[in-house]
Amino acid sequence: MSRQLHLNAFLMSTGHHEASWRLPESNPVANTDVAHYQNLARIAERGKFDSVFFADSPVLIGDVGRRPAGSLEPTVLLTAIAAATSRIGLIATASTTYNDPFNLARRFASVDHVSGGRAGWNVVTTAGPDAAKNFNLADQPAHAERYDRAAEFLEVAYALWDSWEDDATVADKEAGVWGDSARVQPIDHVGRHFQVRGPLNLPRSPQGHPLIVQAGSSEDGKGLAARYAEAVFTAQQTLADAQAFYADLKARTAALGRDPETIKILPGIVPVIGGTVEEALRLEQELDELIKPEYARQQLAKTLRVRPEDLPLDRQLPADLPDEDEIEGAKSRYTLIVTLARREKLTVRELIGRLGGGRGHRTFSGTPEQVADAIVEWFEAGAADGFNVMPAVLPSGLEAFADHVVPILRQRGLFRTDYTGTTLREHYGLARPSPERLTTAVGAN
Amino acid sequence: MSRQLHLNAFLMSTGHHEASWRLPESNPVANTDVAHYQNLARIAERGKFDSVFFADSPVLIGDVGRRPAGSLEPTVLLTAIAAATSRIGLIATASTTYNDPFNLARRFASVDHVSGGRAGWNVVTTAGPDAAKNFNLADQPAHAERYDRAAEFLEVAYALWDSWEDDATVADKEAGVWGDSARVQPIDHVGRHFQVRGPLNLPRSPQGHPLIVQAGSSEDGKGLAARYAEAVFTAQQTLADAQAFYADLKARTAALGRDPETIKILPGIVPVIGGTVEEALRLEQELDELIKPEYARQQLAKTLRVRPEDLPLDRQLPADLPDEDEIEGAKSRYTLIVTLARREKLTVRELIGRLGGGRGHRTFSGTPEQVADAIVEWFEAGAADGFNVMPAVLPSGLEAFADHVVPILRQRGLFRTDYTGTTLREHYGLARPSPERLTTAVGAN
Ligand SMILES: Cc1cc2nc3c(=O)[nH]c(=O)nc-3n(C[C@H](O)[C@H](O)[C@H](O)COP(=O)(O)O)c2cc1C
Ligand SMILES: Cc1cc2nc3c(=O)[nH]c(=O)nc-3n(C[C@H](O)[C@H](O)[C@H](O)COP(=O)(O)O)c2cc1C
Repeated sequence: MSRQLHLNAFLMSTGHHEASWRLPESNPVANTDVAHYQNLARIAERGKFDSVFFADSPVLIGDVGRRPAGSLEPTVLLTAIAAATSRIGLIATASTTYNDPFNLARRFASVDHVSGGRAGWNVVTTAGPDAAKNFNLADQPAHAERYDRAAEFLEVAYALWDSWEDDATVADKEAGVWGDSARVQPIDHVGRHFQVRGPLNLPRSPQGHPLIVQAGSSEDGKGLAARYAEAVFTAQQTLADAQAFYADLKARTAALGRDPETIKILPGIVPVIGGTVEEALRLEQELDELIKPEYARQQLAKTLRVRPEDLPLDRQLPADLPDEDEIEGAKSRYTLIVTLARREKLTVRELIGRLGGGRGHRTFSGTPEQVADAIVEWFEAGAADGFNVMPAVLPSGLEAFADHVVPILRQRGLFRTDYTGTTLREHYGLARPSPERLTTAVGAN
Repeated sequence: MSRQLHLNAFLMSTGHHEASWRLPESNPVANTDVAHYQNLARIAERGKFDSVFFADSPVLIGDVGRRPAGSLEPTVLLTAIAAATSRIGLIATASTTYNDPFNLARRFASVDHVSGGRAGWNVVTTAGPDAAKNFNLADQPAHAERYDRAAEFLEVAYALWDSWEDDATVADKEAGVWGDSARVQPIDHVGRHFQVRGPLNLPRSPQGHPLIVQAGSSEDGKGLAARYAEAVFTAQQTLADAQAFYADLKARTAALGRDPETIKILPGIVPVIGGTVEEALRLEQELDELIKPEYARQQLAKTLRVRPEDLPLDRQLPADLPDEDEIEGAKSRYTLIVTLARREKLTVRELIGRLGGGRGHRTFSGTPEQVADAIVEWFEAGAADGFNVMPAVLPSGLEAFADHVVPILRQRGLFRTDYTGTTLREHYGLARPSPERLTTAVGAN
């Protein structure tokens, strides 16, 4: 069988286009509606997607006037989805900066247990000063400090997940011995950021470890990914950029002694699908006309660290913007936006349109064939192991993808006709870690 | 209609008797089996219980040899149960000492959203030095300090839950205005333990606030309950003790300007139910004979702060035990155990038998009629507003209660024949808090 594509469905209220909630078809309070998300996950499962995914940040972002704001905590939401599905993987974002490892490791292990081995964790460091203010801090820890904490956080989580051997539960009713205490051991972690004694208060989970996903593309972000990630989400605007990112990250992974096949790179794509090219373009245009540029300009100004009035809508970006080095927030997203605007000589209004469609991810409008072609092109050109599918409108855009694009990918022999395993690791073709193997791998760097 | 009983089902793996997992009928790995718990919740819902409840502590407790050890994180588990039930309330324990308010308030609000208003939170301060060692600390914060933090934690949680007004979501597609930003406000909390800016990143939940439950019976514990709790779980061995506790807590609640009807007091009862008295006693004896006293003696020694060898199995407790004042852990449980042993002149072996059955809760063996009588006696004698039902064996003990004891309580006109509301607050007869009213009530003390 030829190399197979992986598909993740990135779900977000009424869709990734910021004006999607204004369409007549959209349920504007979908962001707190568990039935909406259960329905989406069932659609993705019908399309045999590897996984569904929720982004997250422990802070209210932006102006509530703009678009559906606030969201259900992802581990809770994914547990509700687990109950409504049977095979699809479930990836939740959680911050290593604003959680502590004992509780979070246990929570992901719990989701893995209740879902029968379908849990994944998108490990993020949470950019921006606003989140810090919800957690007793006046400002965010520095970028490098956040990534240093993230690495130690993961070491602690691995150790906790491995603190029970797989066969620690003896359950010998006759002898009256439930567990073998020699196979449940403290971890006695003492590090720069954490002291955690362990063991975890939960037997080892079906996958051993939930799948580790990473989504930051700064230097430190790529370093963390190369060392720990099993799947990587990334925003890439051009084939050349995506190829460079792909080659770079695979090489970094190999340099750390890991098989580069064990890290799956999934760029985002925001498809707008129509039965004809005209229909797709019409939908895209309808959406773009519903954007209210004031909100977007304010957020852009915040990201670029300038005042909104420094960004006249019909001019290009000012020439004197800060370097990525000076950014303590989301470094790679900052650079992506500035590069996109400069390369395509976009006005602020045009830039806002592009970001409103996919927040920096590649947008693509067309027929199911054209979308499939766009996906296959990158997949075969060494730019992707699969895609993070970010429908502009939900549920209709996901239905169009699952029912019209997926069958084409399947015809081309690039995508499964049914699940062959039951766990998220099996969908991504990744081994179940044994405690021993991991201890070595983690210690190897 | 006469005053109505409230019933909560306290669920724990194979049952509350420590040897229950050794019975032929028991699934010894039920502690990580979501289907087991979904089945239990459906049984309780068929019996029209107000709620199901899970205890919790962020540490592995005791020797894994002894009995099923480790448990699924309760908010995750209850979310999975929410998907398998439609009416029953869902109460999860979470620690104010080892969580932070922003994440936890959001998590409970999320459970409230996905369950359609069925979430409750058993607020505990987590006793013992072992938990602290999983959270960067060498020892637990002092008892008074933990309760001080708990009170501030609750103030922050209330403020976050109320940071979105109920009608903040306008969802005006035409005008392109999703939320009314004037109705979503930061909380700007600055206190001894926390600085939290807010607002929450989630619209207000169906119940406004999840139901607040409290379960510590020390002086500070009762103070916290009187001020904040809407239901109280408590371990009481005798009618006289239960009456005194009930009168005391209702008086404390009234003294703070709260209607004492708004705090429901639920002592625990561990029923062992048989078709005949002999059958019940036979089951009780079978269970007690399966206890292995070494494990229990070690734990008792830890609680009493003596060495195991200071507790010969066939002698009474040593005379010179510490006062409750000297205990920084679970003060009220300590006193309950010592009082029980001294009052009934129990040997260590007998005490272990009593604690093995219900960990200090009232145990009661008998026919369904006798169990119903025991419940009604306390209910009518001013000792209880209802009961925390802790079956010795699960699922069989819960089935016996739901199918044989509940119908008797119903015949006596003391328990619902069906749910009349859809939320946990409605089951307990408690109002949905409006942001205004609560701000006043909380500020009143
Ligand atoms: C598809 C995708 C999803 C992401 N989701 C989140 C998220 O949910 N929360 C978050 O804090 N960062 C998320 N990020 C990462 C941020 O965009 C940003 O890169 C990161 O916060 C900062 O890392 P960096 O400085 O290494 O780029 C995501 C990135 C991608 C590509
Ligand atoms: C039914 C019941 C359930 C309880 N569940 C928990 C629990 O899950 N976690 C916990 O830390 N304490 C729990 N407690 C409270 C402890 O028994 C103990 O009272 C408390 O940790 C210390 O509070 P105190 O010193 O005020 O008594 C529970 C108490 C009762 C009566």
